[in-house]
Amino acid sequence: MIPRLFRSEPSVFYSIGYSNDNCVLIEFNQSEKILITDGRYTEEASLVGGFAVFESRDLIKAINQIFKKNHIKKALIDTSEWSADEYLRLAKSSVYLLQKSGFTRKIRSVKTALEISKIDFACKHGKKSFELLAKQLTFGVSEKEAAFEMKMLMNSKGADDISFEPIVAFNSGSSLPHYKPSGNKLQNGSVVLIDAGCKIDNYCSDMTRTAFFDGSLNFEYAQKFDTNIKQKVYDTVLRAHDEAIKHAKVGMLACELDKIARDIIIDAGFEKAFKHGLGHGLGLEIHEAPSVSFRSKEILEEDMVFTIEPGIYLDGEFGVRIEDVVVLKSDGAHILGL
Amino acid sequence: MIPRLFRSEPSVFYSIGYSNDNCVLIEFNQSEKILITDGRYTEEASLVGGFAVFESRDLIKAINQIFKKNHIKKALIDTSEWSADEYLRLAKSSVYLLQKSGFTRKIRSVKTALEISKIDFACKHGKKSFELLAKQLTFGVSEKEAAFEMKMLMNSKGADDISFEPIVAFNSGSSLPHYKPSGNKLQNGSVVLIDAGCKIDNYCSDMTRTAFFDGSLNFEYAQKFDTNIKQKVYDTVLRAHDEAIKHAKVGMLACELDKIARDIIIDAGFEKAFKHGLGHGLGLEIHEAPSVSFRSKEILEEDMVFTIEPGIYLDGEFGVRIEDVVVLKSDGAHILGL
Repeated sequence: MIPRLFRSEPSVFYSIGYSNDNCVLIEFNQSEKILITDGRYTEEASLVGGFAVFESRDLIKAINQIFKKNHIKKALIDTSEWSADEYLRLAKSSVYLLQKSGFTRKIRSVKTALEISKIDFACKHGKKSFELLAKQLTFGVSEKEAAFEMKMLMNSKGADDISFEPIVAFNSGSSLPHYKPSGNKLQNGSVVLIDAGCKIDNYCSDMTRTAFFDGSLNFEYAQKFDTNIKQKVYDTVLRAHDEAIKHAKVGMLACELDKIARDIIIDAGFEKAFKHGLGHGLGLEIHEAPSVSFRSKEILEEDMVFTIEPGIYLDGEFGVRIEDVVVLKSDGAHILGL
Repeated sequence: MIPRLFRSEPSVFYSIGYSNDNCVLIEFNQSEKILITDGRYTEEASLVGGFAVFESRDLIKAINQIFKKNHIKKALIDTSEWSADEYLRLAKSSVYLLQKSGFTRKIRSVKTALEISKIDFACKHGKKSFELLAKQLTFGVSEKEAAFEMKMLMNSKGADDISFEPIVAFNSGSSLPHYKPSGNKLQNGSVVLIDAGCKIDNYCSDMTRTAFFDGSLNFEYAQKFDTNIKQKVYDTVLRAHDEAIKHAKVGMLACELDKIARDIIIDAGFEKAFKHGLGHGLGLEIHEAPSVSFRSKEILEEDMVFTIEPGIYLDGEFGVRIEDVVVLKSDGAHILGL
């Protein structure tokens, strides 16, 4: 077996159940692994077990020392995990670097049963937070206050962290897919788009709902809007979401699944308004493989976990996005967190 | 002028006052700048002004298109900002890449008066949060609960975010410089180490205090411990902190400043127990240039902002760290946030 190098926090964590912000893992095989890290982390890393700890302030120098000592001539690296700086230093060593971009994410894209249950648990907690937030969204609250409240709800009720800064957008703000919450206040007749996720036991959730506020609101799928155009946009996005989930199958190309949702949106007359891919894998990271976009030739496999999140964005007016996390099984996609 | 490429969020933000998680800035000169980003961000980026926006799903391809159109033959990149993947793709283009690792951080290491006042403001808020937390730390509270409370205090009283996950460590946990809060509970006679910072208006604060809990505590510099060894360790760290601040001068090498603190700790008999550098620059990021370690040959310049944070860690027993952020002026270092 060719020794493999792991550089990013999640890929190191996936291999040994421990990671920090300055480490490299050398995996000789399933049972021989060396973690290189600096003196701040030596003690805690040593307590974990299952791998040796090599203390060094210079990770690249340490890799070369270990390679030399073990007479290693070849090693596999994932070029997406290394900075150009580190790569250029590593490339100067006498070890031949087999470069395979993305292999560490590929390894993590098919989830174990335990991982799926952890993501499901995080999604349940995320969904519950949306329900609690719905009760607190009252006339005059600002996007920033609502985003803060969402973080509080997630964190105070059991999450270890949020998985990304919540997006809360009212009306025209919702036309920007990655909007930053502002001081805009909630008013009757507002379109409310919220995209938020939490992290529990290292695994992420991710969910988006769009709702209509008329003094109160809920985050159910069924929504009634005040104008025909809003209703048409919403119903189109919901249909794209439902049909994509219904038709997801093991063995499909990711771009084929994207196309199912995209065609519904195009047929409804919103060709350019779906400004991003249909979804993305998630797990230890909020964005993982597979990419579920119209360009992605990745094959959807059993036990992959990814989001389904079609959207329609009408510049300067409003936007709608509906997002759930699904796990792909032999009988199709199942929404997690229900 | 050779066109410069900026890839990281803070270095793009520093140049144009806007950034997102998928963009590259090409700076032809002070007045001609092109931001490349994808369709999710086009609308919001266009609203900022001061630069052109080029929409593309493939940043590297877009760079090559822009270079070709503008007959660019050479460009400067900071190899610490790019992934090996991106670098390898860029290196295939016909443009000659001048590589200067760290130049984007070097640019940002000397702060403007406005930046210093923003960091000072964030530090004031951070300090206030320590004072509020001190009143809430009562017998039986866990490290995790205290860390959560610190985040709540920072966020609910005006910070935009925390600048990193707070470290709260009681007793033996404090011997790990980058400890993760656990379920350990506060008891009378505990050593309490807290390292936390917030972010306001994009700028970071960072502060560490170590205190003795005997039913209550405070985060003043003067602390009374229950054993001679704890008191000796604490007083040594405080002296190292004070002397480093007192002797910091414009024109010094960063390693010379580190040595002032390190020598005090070594002379007191704790040679190997100071397991990290004396400090680090901060600003838009929590870790910036200069590095203030025993290996750093960086010259300390006027208006640099960095931390002073000596520590002594006795494995499995306890640790002490005291940290403040200082700005270096012609008359010496001044603690921010007072």
